[in-house]
Amino acid sequence: MALDRLIDAIRKMDNPTVAGLDPRLEYLPEYIKQEAFRQWGETLEGAAAAILRFNKELIDALYDVVPAIKPQAAYYELFGWPGMRTLQETMAYADEKGLFVITDGKRNDIGSTMEAYAAAHLGETQVGEQVCHAFDGDALTVNGYLGTDGIQPLLQVCRQRDRGIFVLVKTSNPSSGELQDLRLESGETVYRRMGALCESWGEQLPGKYGYSGVGAVVGATWPDQLAELRKALPHTFFLVPGYGAQGGGAQDVAGAFDQDGIGAVINSSRGILCAWKKEENCPAEDFAGAARREALRMKEALAAVR
Amino acid sequence: MALDRLIDAIRKMDNPTVAGLDPRLEYLPEYIKQEAFRQWGETLEGAAAAILRFNKELIDALYDVVPAIKPQAAYYELFGWPGMRTLQETMAYADEKGLFVITDGKRNDIGSTMEAYAAAHLGETQVGEQVCHAFDGDALTVNGYLGTDGIQPLLQVCRQRDRGIFVLVKTSNPSSGELQDLRLESGETVYRRMGALCESWGEQLPGKYGYSGVGAVVGATWPDQLAELRKALPHTFFLVPGYGAQGGGAQDVAGAFDQDGIGAVINSSRGILCAWKKEENCPAEDFAGAARREALRMKEALAAVR
Repeated sequence: MALDRLIDAIRKMDNPTVAGLDPRLEYLPEYIKQEAFRQWGETLEGAAAAILRFNKELIDALYDVVPAIKPQAAYYELFGWPGMRTLQETMAYADEKGLFVITDGKRNDIGSTMEAYAAAHLGETQVGEQVCHAFDGDALTVNGYLGTDGIQPLLQVCRQRDRGIFVLVKTSNPSSGELQDLRLESGETVYRRMGALCESWGEQLPGKYGYSGVGAVVGATWPDQLAELRKALPHTFFLVPGYGAQGGGAQDVAGAFDQDGIGAVINSSRGILCAWKKEENCPAEDFAGAARREALRMKEALAAVR
Repeated sequence: MALDRLIDAIRKMDNPTVAGLDPRLEYLPEYIKQEAFRQWGETLEGAAAAILRFNKELIDALYDVVPAIKPQAAYYELFGWPGMRTLQETMAYADEKGLFVITDGKRNDIGSTMEAYAAAHLGETQVGEQVCHAFDGDALTVNGYLGTDGIQPLLQVCRQRDRGIFVLVKTSNPSSGELQDLRLESGETVYRRMGALCESWGEQLPGKYGYSGVGAVVGATWPDQLAELRKALPHTFFLVPGYGAQGGGAQDVAGAFDQDGIGAVINSSRGILCAWKKEENCPAEDFAGAARREALRMKEALAAVR
């Protein structure tokens, strides 16, 4: 199952890091933007071309130190269909380099519509006699508010095509508790109930390390809940955002790992993408080198707590 | 506020219907697909071209009988970036024809990322000195599982650009109750709590009819909850999917309307898009005429219960 491929890659590189590709234009060196704008103008196409170049150079610098990338769909939709083309081309390039690609789309809908999302992001698109691929990621983040029939179509595609999903359980943002921490009549919280659903959905996609193809998103900003959920959800692999810029540190994510030091992949977006702005005397032209150095620092920091 | 524009249009046309543009390829007449495939091949581009033509002819037939369309993002993402270009071009065409456009994307994320979604779907994209528009809808469906800071960026854009949102409260699918119907310690259900959040978020976007710019998605398949929520959420306008193909009828949605016969817009997708397949002796070339006739039948059926 697909998360086995992710875990294999994490073990091989001894690095449970996913680099979040959230390419806000302000993260890009000026020279990359100006070269793209000279060719395409200050347009959605121009922005999308600049981002594609930025992403590819980052991938070149990162593919042998991190096992996975996580493009955030919002930062591509922001640039319309040219942005979505850059998303697809970024994903294809990362795939060529052997990276595991998690599309952070937090998609959700009723069953018949979820079939379309599953095909678009993890599966195949039938056009006449031809089989096409829309985005073709290895895993997709999803929101489980609609319950089982909004998840089932994904599980089918995951089984057929060795893909995985990550369901939002306890998100990293400050107000995540408004809904997720509410206590049910049964005594459990909403996020624990969502976690239990992940365990149950995952039974359809068992994996060789004991983790299923249904992972959970649990924020680095909630270390207690991370540790609580690690114990409560023994078959659910975690995708942990919120490390770095959002405030979570290596100690905060320690609880996400199991006794073998696996069980989670930790995302850093801004920390890696903007490393060139923080490193002393780093020329903009070395943005990818700075990203690589930051990814290596993060690997060391995580090794200390696994 | 944006939902005032929708309510104005509903009143003017005396029709609380939104036509859901969920263009599965099997809904399109064969001749439209074949003409597109001859030019573009059986590719994502070919499918996207066929869908754009289908949508435009539907819009031509519908724009003076329905006030709004609701393209479902999944059926465009299914065709990759060419599909997203068709989504954008469909939306621009509908806007030219004066239709109110609700993008059904059920987007959700943490605050900083939600800013990008808000800009992409309801706002503006800054590229260098230029202001661009990615999708530029009038309203967007969103999932509130992340709480207030995942919603706040949308409210800002809605205020600045006269746009609206619809938050998933009680969805139309069979398993919606798994999370949404859970009873909290406080005695209320999760969907009632989400509804209460809509009322509270809506205070920032008051409208002239008493309904705020923050609407709620409540399925036609749950008539009792529709009526319950109509009473409990006096300032929250409803977007009601599930009419027709999913099983909801005019009687089922009666409870969505207030005593003035407003308060809700009812979506029909398959019923309108596939009317040509159901009408006796309807030639495929008359698919748009059949859609118009079905929309008029739906208007009559709803008039009887408003």
